Amino acid sequence: MSLVTASFISPDALLSHWQGHRRLTRRVVDAFPDDKLFTFSIGGMRSFGDLAMELQSMALPMARGLATGEWDVSFDRQARPKHEILKLWDDATPQIEALWKQMPPERFYETATAFGQYPGTVHDLVLYVIDNEVHHRGQGYVYLRALGIEPPPFYDRS
Amino acid sequence: MSLVTASFISPDALLSHWQGHRRLTRRVVDAFPDDKLFTFSIGGMRSFGDLAMELQSMALPMARGLATGEWDVSFDRQARPKHEILKLWDDATPQIEALWKQMPPERFYETATAFGQYPGTVHDLVLYVIDNEVHHRGQGYVYLRALGIEPPPFYDRS
Repeated sequence: MSLVTASFISPDALLSHWQGHRRLTRRVVDAFPDDKLFTFSIGGMRSFGDLAMELQSMALPMARGLATGEWDVSFDRQARPKHEILKLWDDATPQIEALWKQMPPERFYETATAFGQYPGTVHDLVLYVIDNEVHHRGQGYVYLRALGIEPPPFYDRS
Repeated sequence: MSLVTASFISPDALLSHWQGHRRLTRRVVDAFPDDKLFTFSIGGMRSFGDLAMELQSMALPMARGLATGEWDVSFDRQARPKHEILKLWDDATPQIEALWKQMPPERFYETATAFGQYPGTVHDLVLYVIDNEVHHRGQGYVYLRALGIEPPPFYDRS
């Protein structure tokens, strides 16, 4: 095990932080009318449904890859009804939890090549997935506002 | 000093991560035409200039508050020319760095009340500032796309 002399945050607390973000993103998906999820966009960007499928293709597959070395690059990102997206979301939550718990603490300081093509320190790879979710979710907030829909509060991660 | 048994990421690496996000956000501010920064918005939201001033009112003041206990709630968020925003940004960078280095590692596991009204564990308060920046910057990306301007790449934090 590598010598860790200082800690900003523990693996357990970071997992809680991540799952809090995932709960909020789920509420943003749910706030979209089904008929706007894959059709509405601004400035030539992807729809929020497309972005949500990207997020799903990264979260559980990243946790699985980092924990087991098995990288899923075949994740099906195709459009689907909102209730199916939410079901995928809910199915992923306990799997991410279980995979995370399999990782020994020193794992987060090791290097890995995510999806066979993105090298980095494990903690940076995890933060990239979270940041990418926050980034695209922020875009979803603009889409909702443009549709006249009040987004869920950013600070509530319960 | 509290006993830390596991670390997801070190304080040094988290600071680098934060400053990387700040470099990218600076590029997003800089990508806006000066005459759109405080005038353009979508769906009744705040302009990106307003959002950028909010981000500035949180980053250095949060670092200062956590490191010294002095909370600045009088930060002037008024509109100003882009070059002044960028100068404020650049002035804050080494100050955040210096304040961060003053914090002993156990500080991140303590509790604090940010700006006299937001209680939390220090690491969560820091992550909130970063997440809020990523969230609003994502909104800036939509504004830029709607203006027909290509935003800087999300993955580049150099």
